[in-house]
Amino acid sequence: MRYELYYWPTIQGRGEFVRLALEDAGADYIDVGNASDAGITEISEFLDGESTLYPPFAPPFLRAGEILVSHVANILQFLGPRLGLVPEGEAVRLWAHGLQLTVTDFVAEIHDVHHPISSDDYYEAQRDTAQARAEAFLESRLPRFLGYFEQVIAQNPDSDDCLVEGGHSYVDLSLFQTVSGLRYAFPRAMEAEMPSHPGIAALVSRVARRERIAAYLGSERRLPFSEQGIFRHYAELDSPPPT
Amino acid sequence: MRYELYYWPTIQGRGEFVRLALEDAGADYIDVGNASDAGITEISEFLDGESTLYPPFAPPFLRAGEILVSHVANILQFLGPRLGLVPEGEAVRLWAHGLQLTVTDFVAEIHDVHHPISSDDYYEAQRDTAQARAEAFLESRLPRFLGYFEQVIAQNPDSDDCLVEGGHSYVDLSLFQTVSGLRYAFPRAMEAEMPSHPGIAALVSRVARRERIAAYLGSERRLPFSEQGIFRHYAELDSPPPT
Repeated sequence: MRYELYYWPTIQGRGEFVRLALEDAGADYIDVGNASDAGITEISEFLDGESTLYPPFAPPFLRAGEILVSHVANILQFLGPRLGLVPEGEAVRLWAHGLQLTVTDFVAEIHDVHHPISSDDYYEAQRDTAQARAEAFLESRLPRFLGYFEQVIAQNPDSDDCLVEGGHSYVDLSLFQTVSGLRYAFPRAMEAEMPSHPGIAALVSRVARRERIAAYLGSERRLPFSEQGIFRHYAELDSPPPT
Repeated sequence: MRYELYYWPTIQGRGEFVRLALEDAGADYIDVGNASDAGITEISEFLDGESTLYPPFAPPFLRAGEILVSHVANILQFLGPRLGLVPEGEAVRLWAHGLQLTVTDFVAEIHDVHHPISSDDYYEAQRDTAQARAEAFLESRLPRFLGYFEQVIAQNPDSDDCLVEGGHSYVDLSLFQTVSGLRYAFPRAMEAEMPSHPGIAALVSRVARRERIAAYLGSERRLPFSEQGIFRHYAELDSPPPT
């Protein structure tokens, strides 16, 4: 099976959560948006409903033969069993999907820090509001989400560096990506947070050492973080420097 | 099977999307938060991980025997086949779940209109920003989401008042709730939008006429919309009156 990932070119964005699963499993896939200049046209034809009766609202979406799946969490739920990235069993798969949906919520909040008023407008036009939102995010929401995932790792009876019982899963890859992005966007705040989250730190180190992930991160396929994506580094939104 | 729904008492909130599915199917369920004064304590014990190894990040969550499921879209995906609210088949179920996740995204944006800076702070403390966000939402995001769902209904080969092929599904119930909430929150804007979305209007009317839904909406179990929930009516956030 050759999987086709449809996502906007040149940025990691939400597509990266899917790429990491495909790369980690050594899956055969094509990243349509980055594969050729025609990628954007192909994506648009799906969104317009010309190429499918199931038009997604937005990328990323994945095609696997006759099946089309939209939304990161839905794609990963679909790929998980096929790529060996989630254990067997209905209860644990619903749990993994719920965790992934919590990552989805976390990522949406991270994005909205730099776009609190409108996604359609420039950061610079909403910078003052972004600063107020960043303060609230760093003070309240960041520790709440990190604390939750830390608790989940601590409660996992099977492991101290995995979220889901039974070992490594696609949710670990997504938490790795989220923490990597947060470290890029808010380096000072994350330096302060990480010592009190040893389970997350162990998970992130473990994922980065996985053979195919390490190879991927060192390859040209891994696009850089930038101020066009979800995780953006604007120094004025990070915690103030220590005094 | 008696389903247990865990959600905060006194408000519709995100729990309402689950209630509508359970009510429409005539399922045996208990609304734990509203059932007794002990409801909040029971919810908290799940969130703290005292009652489960799978602690949800937040309500709503559902218990069905040994299974615990968090997040509206995950709960509905779980209930859909059991309650006869989604057709058979992997491809169409992934499509229904993707549509539901688009409803999730839409609902999150609707909520953030009145809380653009922080969910932890009062509306009154972020009213000016809320007005800027409401303008952007009504001008750009509301028509984009409604236009998308209208397109999906129009493309459905089986029906002109259902989202998913094969007929009525849990996604229709969620779109009904979303449009009902939008009409409560933004009556002027929705009066202007609805004439150009005849498929959505037909779907909403059809759902409201379903026997068990009509009975539920007329019962005391249907909590009122209010300024404590997702859909809040603040006149200053709606479109200006016609001049």
